[in-house]
Amino acid sequence: MSRIPYKIYLSEEELPRQWYNVRADMKTDHAPILNPGTLKPVTEEELSGIFCEELARQELNTKDRFIDIPEEVQDFYKMYRPSPLVRAYCLEKELDTPAHIYYKFEGSNTSGSHKLNSAVAQAYYAKKQGLTGLTTETGAGQWGTALSMACAYFGLDLKVYMVKNSAEKKPYRKAVMETYGAQVIPSPSDTTEVGRKILQEMPDTTGSLGCAISEAVEVAVTTPNTRYVLGSVLNQVLLHQSIIGLETKIAAEKYDIFPDILIGCAGGGSNLGGLMSAYMTDRLAGKKSPYFIAVEPASCPTLTRGKFAYDFCDTGKVTPLAKMYTLGSGFIPSGIHAGGLRYHGMSPILSQLYHDGFLDEARAVKQTECFEAAVRFARTEGILPAPESSHAIKVAVDEALKCRERGEKKTIIFGLSGTGYFDMMAFQEYINDELVDYVPSDEELEQGFKGIPQL
Amino acid sequence: MSRIPYKIYLSEEELPRQWYNVRADMKTDHAPILNPGTLKPVTEEELSGIFCEELARQELNTKDRFIDIPEEVQDFYKMYRPSPLVRAYCLEKELDTPAHIYYKFEGSNTSGSHKLNSAVAQAYYAKKQGLTGLTTETGAGQWGTALSMACAYFGLDLKVYMVKNSAEKKPYRKAVMETYGAQVIPSPSDTTEVGRKILQEMPDTTGSLGCAISEAVEVAVTTPNTRYVLGSVLNQVLLHQSIIGLETKIAAEKYDIFPDILIGCAGGGSNLGGLMSAYMTDRLAGKKSPYFIAVEPASCPTLTRGKFAYDFCDTGKVTPLAKMYTLGSGFIPSGIHAGGLRYHGMSPILSQLYHDGFLDEARAVKQTECFEAAVRFARTEGILPAPESSHAIKVAVDEALKCRERGEKKTIIFGLSGTGYFDMMAFQEYINDELVDYVPSDEELEQGFKGIPQL
Repeated sequence: MSRIPYKIYLSEEELPRQWYNVRADMKTDHAPILNPGTLKPVTEEELSGIFCEELARQELNTKDRFIDIPEEVQDFYKMYRPSPLVRAYCLEKELDTPAHIYYKFEGSNTSGSHKLNSAVAQAYYAKKQGLTGLTTETGAGQWGTALSMACAYFGLDLKVYMVKNSAEKKPYRKAVMETYGAQVIPSPSDTTEVGRKILQEMPDTTGSLGCAISEAVEVAVTTPNTRYVLGSVLNQVLLHQSIIGLETKIAAEKYDIFPDILIGCAGGGSNLGGLMSAYMTDRLAGKKSPYFIAVEPASCPTLTRGKFAYDFCDTGKVTPLAKMYTLGSGFIPSGIHAGGLRYHGMSPILSQLYHDGFLDEARAVKQTECFEAAVRFARTEGILPAPESSHAIKVAVDEALKCRERGEKKTIIFGLSGTGYFDMMAFQEYINDELVDYVPSDEELEQGFKGIPQL
Repeated sequence: MSRIPYKIYLSEEELPRQWYNVRADMKTDHAPILNPGTLKPVTEEELSGIFCEELARQELNTKDRFIDIPEEVQDFYKMYRPSPLVRAYCLEKELDTPAHIYYKFEGSNTSGSHKLNSAVAQAYYAKKQGLTGLTTETGAGQWGTALSMACAYFGLDLKVYMVKNSAEKKPYRKAVMETYGAQVIPSPSDTTEVGRKILQEMPDTTGSLGCAISEAVEVAVTTPNTRYVLGSVLNQVLLHQSIIGLETKIAAEKYDIFPDILIGCAGGGSNLGGLMSAYMTDRLAGKKSPYFIAVEPASCPTLTRGKFAYDFCDTGKVTPLAKMYTLGSGFIPSGIHAGGLRYHGMSPILSQLYHDGFLDEARAVKQTECFEAAVRFARTEGILPAPESSHAIKVAVDEALKCRERGEKKTIIFGLSGTGYFDMMAFQEYINDELVDYVPSDEELEQGFKGIPQL
């Protein structure tokens, strides 16, 4: 075996040409998504009122293991993919560990994260269907940025409802989206019925993801030739994000690398679901596979302390119901800086895999621990990670230190899903020792669980 | 010839192991740098009071065409290099041009620019000499960030004097440097004699690069085991940045690509000097070579409207004198957003090459034109460029459109020296139509020229 380089790149020819649909291999399919009005499984036709037709089809596809990546999407991918699988030689040295640490780096595109992988696909299908515009919501801003880039490329109008609090605290995230031609509307706004209603009831609200979703959906269904898109949780998103794991496995196998442990942060599940895709195939087929760890914030402990139940995907209760791990759609996570992980629910696919023991472990970590790991990583490996990705770093470091204690030479791969360039306020607070941790009490969680509907 | 991929990456084995010292090949060496006290050529010993010994040697080296890149620096390079040579297929399509456009992308490391190439080298030599700290100044913040990363990696203390105006307008740039452990001091400050003097005379000043240099130099020469470092203009910096051009040429030749035109933005000259290095070898040897274009801001037209004369490298007149194109060390460029190009002088090497006709052309462009090209580029190629790099994009687009008019299939390579993620205020102003252009009048320039010393 030749020496492993710092960065393993695939050639353009080696880029996967199909996404992998893990659902086709699952022993138990996730429970069907329900129409919130009828409480019956949603149909493709119903979904097509909100989503593009092809995306509605993908959402419900349980049969096709592989789905062709359209050539136009492949062409866009080639502008920023393959992403490198990086050997963290310097971090290993810093930790003095016998473990081999790798990370799949998804942050070297302008959106700053893996979100672009699905944004491009969703914008492409919208264009192909003859739509002229899309709407979405964004919290931390990574999804909104990714979709802005994709819509600029395919020539689609885009309205992004950005949680007001975020829009005010991250004016430069807003500016990036506007540079790509998107219209960014702080939510709640007076541009929708639901927004006006909320403003009337709570004039001083700083907004929430739930409200932003409701506004975006309202505009999508009331504007001609327009649909709504979402950057996580959905099956279609996990499908598109499978490119991460497929590339990872091809790159690893070129150098006979087999991960003993695979680690990813999990908010809605798009990053971890993507990263573990190609290895989950093996697990589901009973073959040798890594030990999978999902990392979530202790302040929003969906997998570790949530309930596995049917719940709404949004606070406004306008979306379909999914069976998933949830803290209750009314649960408002504290204002931690990993905004991308502040979601009350979890991808139905990941939830089912976790419930069935195929996703081995979920671990909740505190944000100060994550920032500590993030700074250590930045100073040794160069890259300043996103607060979200830092959750995976924290657990990778912990596992590598365990290897040191036990003298084990394990191979660890974690997902470095993005960069923190637009999160410097958070790093500043960490450096100034102003960051606090928050762990909800059992009573608080019980309060949230009360909001889960009894079906 | 096989189809050219979107991105050409070199393998780790193909990475250059030596820097190229263009000075050894120059027909006419640049005039010697003068000690400001004696007005005699500075000696290595004199320079070693300010710079590390090895860097002082490199600064004066006229003989060695190639200088080994230390293994420790190569190891750091491997974390973020090689940088890709990208075929701008989408931009070509958008411009409907028969030209082939390529860009060498130096922005995919956390510092966001090519500056890291020299920062790592300078920090390494400081560490090797047994120094414990470095000082520097930063304006736009790219150099300060790069050096912070390098100092964190090698375990060196770093004090960055950041122009007060920038520190206030770019708090997140400051936060990045602090995250990497640097101490960032808005300049002028009360931490130095020269700073206190300036504050006494002009208590409301927002600072200038000249003042920040003076403070950084004062601290370096009065603190034990500490030296001063600079991110552009110097010969040593162009030497380290030659890695850009060396990689470019190796990547291009793998696919039989020969650039007819090579374009780079030029402030102090580090980026363009680096990019054209390997092709300038051929020019100086009388072989076939590209047409070299330096692009500078119309508001700071050093090459296009400056004088070729001995001048101070800083406003405070504490640094040695160099013969270069200059607008006068007292010239204060208007507050354009390409802070990295707001320098009154130019690398002595580039100045001499331009004077002798080896650097073919300098072109001055207005910032609004650059932002227009930047947004067009971002929306087609994905990457949001730095305002500095946008100068090169603007001219590359112009040349490609010329090719369309004339039906010429020229090959254009330009340097995409960095990303604009920390420059969103500028893009916001552009989007809001609030950006203005400024072109100094002949009278203003004459005023600046009066500050050039008569030797």
